[in-house]
Amino acid sequence: MTKIQEAMDLIARGADEILLQNELRKKLETGRPLKIKAGFDPTAPDLHLGHTVLINKLRQFQQLGHTVVFLIGDFTGMIGDPSGKNATRPPLTHDQIKQNAETYQQQIFKILDPDQTEIAFNSTWMDKANAAAIIRLASSYTVARMLERDDFNKRYKANQPIAIHEFLYPLVQAYDSVVLEADVELGGTDQRFNLLMGRQLQETYGKTPQIVLTMPILEGLDGVQKMSKSLGNYIGINESANEMFGKIMSVSDALMWRYFELLSFRSLEEINGFKLQVAQGENPRDIKFKLATEIITRFHDGKAAATAQADFIKRFRHNARPDDMPEVVIKVRQEGMSCAHIMKAAGLVSSTSDAHRMAKQGAVKIDGVRIEDSKQLLQAGFTAVLQVGKRKFASVTLIDE
Amino acid sequence: MTKIQEAMDLIARGADEILLQNELRKKLETGRPLKIKAGFDPTAPDLHLGHTVLINKLRQFQQLGHTVVFLIGDFTGMIGDPSGKNATRPPLTHDQIKQNAETYQQQIFKILDPDQTEIAFNSTWMDKANAAAIIRLASSYTVARMLERDDFNKRYKANQPIAIHEFLYPLVQAYDSVVLEADVELGGTDQRFNLLMGRQLQETYGKTPQIVLTMPILEGLDGVQKMSKSLGNYIGINESANEMFGKIMSVSDALMWRYFELLSFRSLEEINGFKLQVAQGENPRDIKFKLATEIITRFHDGKAAATAQADFIKRFRHNARPDDMPEVVIKVRQEGMSCAHIMKAAGLVSSTSDAHRMAKQGAVKIDGVRIEDSKQLLQAGFTAVLQVGKRKFASVTLIDE
Repeated sequence: MTKIQEAMDLIARGADEILLQNELRKKLETGRPLKIKAGFDPTAPDLHLGHTVLINKLRQFQQLGHTVVFLIGDFTGMIGDPSGKNATRPPLTHDQIKQNAETYQQQIFKILDPDQTEIAFNSTWMDKANAAAIIRLASSYTVARMLERDDFNKRYKANQPIAIHEFLYPLVQAYDSVVLEADVELGGTDQRFNLLMGRQLQETYGKTPQIVLTMPILEGLDGVQKMSKSLGNYIGINESANEMFGKIMSVSDALMWRYFELLSFRSLEEINGFKLQVAQGENPRDIKFKLATEIITRFHDGKAAATAQADFIKRFRHNARPDDMPEVVIKVRQEGMSCAHIMKAAGLVSSTSDAHRMAKQGAVKIDGVRIEDSKQLLQAGFTAVLQVGKRKFASVTLIDE
Repeated sequence: MTKIQEAMDLIARGADEILLQNELRKKLETGRPLKIKAGFDPTAPDLHLGHTVLINKLRQFQQLGHTVVFLIGDFTGMIGDPSGKNATRPPLTHDQIKQNAETYQQQIFKILDPDQTEIAFNSTWMDKANAAAIIRLASSYTVARMLERDDFNKRYKANQPIAIHEFLYPLVQAYDSVVLEADVELGGTDQRFNLLMGRQLQETYGKTPQIVLTMPILEGLDGVQKMSKSLGNYIGINESANEMFGKIMSVSDALMWRYFELLSFRSLEEINGFKLQVAQGENPRDIKFKLATEIITRFHDGKAAATAQADFIKRFRHNARPDDMPEVVIKVRQEGMSCAHIMKAAGLVSSTSDAHRMAKQGAVKIDGVRIEDSKQLLQAGFTAVLQVGKRKFASVTLIDE
């Protein structure tokens, strides 16, 4: 496998779409450091793991030797919403934006390498642009195509007003790509339209069009809706190590693998190795510990991660076990016993099919960690609290037959 | 009748719409000279009588003591069509626009009083406007409302592209009203949307909203389609006196009254007097002579008008009468004889109903001037060439019975 192919594979990991792959390959083949653009709001940042999906991808580009341009869209932020219709978007002062930018940097440099990162503000060029420049910019796109953008389309069809300046903001961010001569622009899948506009505008202005790379939107703790502060299903990167640990341990096994793909810096080989271990009977809880440890080490440090894990186990044992919980010792053969059979033997379910059903519904936990696969085999030496539903507990220890 | 009411009547003459009349009355009652805005393209002007409908109305405001601001939209003209899709609209240089403006002035000052006219160029303020100002401007209007404009609506529905900068041009011309603090803006009925936008934008920017006055679009010589150079049905204000005279004499009687209303500076009382004269048997041709004389005097001078009239009559007599035309002398009673009966008596038609039909079709002329009312009575002393269709002529003289 060539070095270029390795780079392509790393870049493609977890990505939703790359336009165009062959152009990206050609750019990589030049060997020069590429300019990787990502745009951010100038509003007060409070990043959660959902935001870091994109930042992690920027870090991978840095590992390949490229330069990240972290673009802060302060020009539009300083105008705010001049129609006055969006009360949540008052104009920001220069000082507020500077302060927000510093908060951003404190957070992103937990992931990015400062030496390979440029912070840019689009007011640098937009403040100098005159009315004629904006008219030229507006001439490069049609009303019909702008109305194809998903959110505009919905609002237009629902007869909700769209002020004309809202058509100018996507053009301004696209023009940033022209000025920066971005080689690649990254964004969430919800930014696809804007990123493609940047690509088109570069062509209009006689520049080499940028590669567009979209990253999926990370699911929140519920595994269904996107991670978002307002939905309460998020893990903030400034949260304490204990809070992070508990939240990560609460996600389903399926979501754990999704988080590994998008949030872990481990290689895909290593992650596939974990999957194999779980398939062979390893407790997924222990793999989840690895994910929690990696993420907490990134935003705090290794010691904080270890303490959080110890606290998590201690807290669980203390809180979760009812005083009158039965202690069950089960003799198992060398190949182990399935989780469902253990649950039946411990009197937690009436049948193994009952056990499978409860597990599928997410009602089965081992040491407080939800399990889905009730067919997994557990071996002698296993000792943990099994829980079914809210009230049935048993402290189970497996010994050799 | 008060002076204000007289002013209101003069302003309303021939107007299509005044929004709002009561606001206009209040402005007139202040007694201060009002700012009357009219916007014009910076393209090479070659005015015809259709354009002068608006300029005549401006002149009436001047007669009432108000100031006309003749606004030349050079800012957008200097940008041209940046999308490059409209090949007929290349950007104009500063020198070209200056030259066009001078040509405009030569033409409009045949009607307007230079002492009460300000020439303004919107580049004066738009060249200084920055990108943020345009974004604020664009925020004051919605996409849906802009798409209600007739031409945009048609193009959008027909899937013809509308570049986004085309949404900015109406806003820029509306902003001109804000800067100029226009009291009244005049335009053709096709400008109604833009003029109302000016009114709304003044309110948004905390100014007193302007009165909007729309003038009808003048019909061309055919009486059906609008006067336009490309349709070939126009009278250019730089045409020779003879050309003008011939063209004015060729219009129908109905169109003559329309032209009197919109192009003549005679009072409505005087024009109503002419109508009465024609109803009482006066040859409409002689009234048409008065219209032609007034207009030619305006754009040339009185002597040129008189010469054109004499030439017209001479040319007509020479060209129109076939050599073998019958000479018919008809005895009429004191009250006269209807045109239809005279045509029948002269053998030009087989019946009076035939005569009425031909007249309605526009196929009947007296001394080369089309007549519609074949019931009009002509008295003894009348002598003229009657023509039906292209080939039937008779030289008719009426004498007392």
